[in-house]
Amino acid sequence: MKPEPIEVALGDRSYPILIGPGLSSGHPMLESLVKGRQVAVVTNDRVAALHGARLGLALSSAAQCIEIRLPEGEDHKDWMSLDRIFEALLESRFDRRSLIVAFGGGVVGDVAGFAAAIYQRGIDFVQVPTTLLAQVDSSVGGKTAINHSLGKNMVGAFHQPRLVLADTDTLATLPPREISAGLAEMIKHGAIADLDYLDSLERDMSALRACEPTALARAVRRSCEIKAQVVAADERESDVRAILNFGHTFGHAIEAGAGYGRWLHGEAVGCGMVMAADLSHRLGMIERGFVDRLIGLIAAAGLPVRGPDWAPEQYLQWMSTDKKADQGRPRFILLDSPGRAVLRQVPDETLEATLRACSGGPFGIS
Amino acid sequence: MKPEPIEVALGDRSYPILIGPGLSSGHPMLESLVKGRQVAVVTNDRVAALHGARLGLALSSAAQCIEIRLPEGEDHKDWMSLDRIFEALLESRFDRRSLIVAFGGGVVGDVAGFAAAIYQRGIDFVQVPTTLLAQVDSSVGGKTAINHSLGKNMVGAFHQPRLVLADTDTLATLPPREISAGLAEMIKHGAIADLDYLDSLERDMSALRACEPTALARAVRRSCEIKAQVVAADERESDVRAILNFGHTFGHAIEAGAGYGRWLHGEAVGCGMVMAADLSHRLGMIERGFVDRLIGLIAAAGLPVRGPDWAPEQYLQWMSTDKKADQGRPRFILLDSPGRAVLRQVPDETLEATLRACSGGPFGIS
Repeated sequence: MKPEPIEVALGDRSYPILIGPGLSSGHPMLESLVKGRQVAVVTNDRVAALHGARLGLALSSAAQCIEIRLPEGEDHKDWMSLDRIFEALLESRFDRRSLIVAFGGGVVGDVAGFAAAIYQRGIDFVQVPTTLLAQVDSSVGGKTAINHSLGKNMVGAFHQPRLVLADTDTLATLPPREISAGLAEMIKHGAIADLDYLDSLERDMSALRACEPTALARAVRRSCEIKAQVVAADERESDVRAILNFGHTFGHAIEAGAGYGRWLHGEAVGCGMVMAADLSHRLGMIERGFVDRLIGLIAAAGLPVRGPDWAPEQYLQWMSTDKKADQGRPRFILLDSPGRAVLRQVPDETLEATLRACSGGPFGIS
Repeated sequence: MKPEPIEVALGDRSYPILIGPGLSSGHPMLESLVKGRQVAVVTNDRVAALHGARLGLALSSAAQCIEIRLPEGEDHKDWMSLDRIFEALLESRFDRRSLIVAFGGGVVGDVAGFAAAIYQRGIDFVQVPTTLLAQVDSSVGGKTAINHSLGKNMVGAFHQPRLVLADTDTLATLPPREISAGLAEMIKHGAIADLDYLDSLERDMSALRACEPTALARAVRRSCEIKAQVVAADERESDVRAILNFGHTFGHAIEAGAGYGRWLHGEAVGCGMVMAADLSHRLGMIERGFVDRLIGLIAAAGLPVRGPDWAPEQYLQWMSTDKKADQGRPRFILLDSPGRAVLRQVPDETLEATLRACSGGPFGIS
């Protein structure tokens, strides 16, 4: 049985998401994109060693195929990695009709996607995400970026892939910490958009953490459907799309403040969701019971539920460069009710109360 | 009498071009874009000293205004200059609703426009071009880019400005060499799209070189009309827009081969147009007489008409990374007839004959 592709409906920039076991060994949609073109696979050592041979086979109809390996980790999501891609493309004389294949996790996808967005003013790319976080979140929606020393994802572009191909087989080799990081974004999708999905994540949590293929594939699919729907409604994040940043304003502050790479993005988001839920409750938007339920689920996913032991001022400083900020004042995605999110500015006192209540954890968690 | 704005018709990305004396001191359209926003003026020392005070006045309704100065010259059209902009914007906590004003020549416009394209995944910008070349060509059409050591304009984006404001007063302070460089692109517009305009450039050449305001403003307007029309027909250069690159495949090779900055872009294009016209004639597309007429006009504009004394192989090497190349083979904009351009690949022998016939000039011209 072949599962239906999920369509990200964006007019002439629409594209399908394929989810299932074994997809990176080849699929007719990938084949038709690759055929006769110059193709550059952007990946890292770990992914290339584990899964590279399969993908190589799937790309055999390319006119020319090169591999570009980036150093691993969020602290390499920078101009140096980007330039490594440009240099390789230019040395091999890749033209405007070339194709980039992003083969790895969120960092590879963001950097390779951004390279595709600006190489010769934009070339096609395909996402082949190999981590849970990338499959359920970062590979879908066309947000690409690199970090700046003064802020995360501060330099980037909206550039939609031509195809997303999520091979669920690649999840089997992930370390548990990365599974947990992916679960954070899935819990987010439930919390902001679908309480039934949140229920199912609660029910299936041990199967998901154990990488049980059926449970995982089903949840990846539901997350992609939610994300595809939100992106189709608001590609460039004028309004609706901002809800996908639930937990991210706090999360980005934690990631940046601790130094990129000490917290995984998903871990920081897990913790950030606790803060955002706490803040929503303090503003009278949701019951304490739902905050506790969310904390329980985040903890059950193996994620931290307390931010680092910093003073509120320190959090505020890292939050004020957030891209959602309005004239230097951060805005927050809050829960209006369970399963429904809104964008808000909040009173300083309430924000500080949340920061005090939800911090006090260790500085780093690795 | 207020001249009508020229409209670049691109749906929801449409914008007006205003041309006239004194515009950088203020205009209601600029005022309405600036009002209440965080505004960053990107410029260089020379332009700031000559014209900065006027523009400062025009921006007085901004909520916050910072100035960012880039080092001058094509060899600074790089990541370092781009990052200087990002650093200043982030330090001043500029958000997604900020506005960049590109105030200078082609380098400032390309770098500042590209910064606007990718800062926080894209913010608004306004072009206030101060050189002839920028007013008639680079400020219109949304092409932004930086150079890579392996090729010119290899990293960039299509990002349309919200407004182009060409103050013809700023042309009075330009060195003659830069006037000539601008005239190259104007001759190009005539050669590819409008023989009447080419006639008028021939007629008015001494007035134009002497910066006679009326002649200059009239010609700037006609060039902008031609460019706006071509860009509206094909924003992302799928086909028609490529004709604007007449002379550029050769020109880019000269610029890159000589080392960025030794030849001004317009100078290299002047020389490149001679080569492209010669090549068109060798392929039987235009009469020798029109080639000679074009050479005469280019020389009358104070531009070089002979490429550097390199072997054909050296030219070919620098041309093979051109963005119009197809699988490593350069393609050329040729004249199908006077006033009409087409995109073509050409036989090696003919290309080499042209390169031999049209080179032999000095290596640098400054």
